[in-house]
Amino acid sequence: MRVLGIDPGLERIGYGVVERRGSQLVAIEHGLVTTPRVEFGERLRALYDEVVALLDRAKPDCVATERLFFAKNQTTAMDVAKALGVVQLAVAQRGLACTEYSPPEVKLSVVGNGAAEKRQVEFMVVKLLGLDAPPKPDDVADALAVAVTHALRAPSALVR
Amino acid sequence: MRVLGIDPGLERIGYGVVERRGSQLVAIEHGLVTTPRVEFGERLRALYDEVVALLDRAKPDCVATERLFFAKNQTTAMDVAKALGVVQLAVAQRGLACTEYSPPEVKLSVVGNGAAEKRQVEFMVVKLLGLDAPPKPDDVADALAVAVTHALRAPSALVR
Repeated sequence: MRVLGIDPGLERIGYGVVERRGSQLVAIEHGLVTTPRVEFGERLRALYDEVVALLDRAKPDCVATERLFFAKNQTTAMDVAKALGVVQLAVAQRGLACTEYSPPEVKLSVVGNGAAEKRQVEFMVVKLLGLDAPPKPDDVADALAVAVTHALRAPSALVR
Repeated sequence: MRVLGIDPGLERIGYGVVERRGSQLVAIEHGLVTTPRVEFGERLRALYDEVVALLDRAKPDCVATERLFFAKNQTTAMDVAKALGVVQLAVAQRGLACTEYSPPEVKLSVVGNGAAEKRQVEFMVVKLLGLDAPPKPDDVADALAVAVTHALRAPSALVR
């Protein structure tokens, strides 16, 4: 089973592709999708095209994203929500399911503690995926963590 | 100049198409786009297809929507923002501009008073568009009001 994890954003969207082979987790690829600083609709269009290309290339069986919460800046939160809607559209158009996890759910799955520190999550992602170094920037580490969460939680019937 | 006005939503999205001919405003069509109560991604996909069909049929020159504000229910607000992102994607893919107006901006343009009552806005929409009866439900009236706002505010160079 191959999971595409997404850390939502507008300017930078972290992604990480993780495959579960039996009890082993393998990192396939990870990185950032960035959108140009252009008019908002154009930005959504660029994001949609990038996500479609990523789905074509990575060929995930399912997608997992971090659940959004509203912070201090509501305008930014609204724009990030719109961008996530565009990502979820591209995923649904491909017939794939998209599961959302809250940050405590990710921490609980990856570290075993819903209140774990960011560094502990990063440490476990590196360990579980056998990476040489911590993934950078944070958006990518977060995307890999949510992909690992889904890979660990998904019913074993889905594992190939 | 033909404006498509949108009142954002997830389950029900009001729309209204208004054409400005010189100093006259003409209502072309208005109604509701509704989405089925299915899984969220499927819902976004259905909404996208409906909006694409509406753009094909109504052939607007530009689009105007009500600006979203966060209310008490953040989950609903997030879902509505995602749905609006999908609408704005479809509009941008057609190369059209999408302008957002806050409720006070709409009231100011339609009634001349940024703090006008809903009924006054409805009254003026009926009067300006020469409708036989107030548009129902409120989502449709709001969509027509935002289309009227943009038609009245747009530079005259755009008027055909």
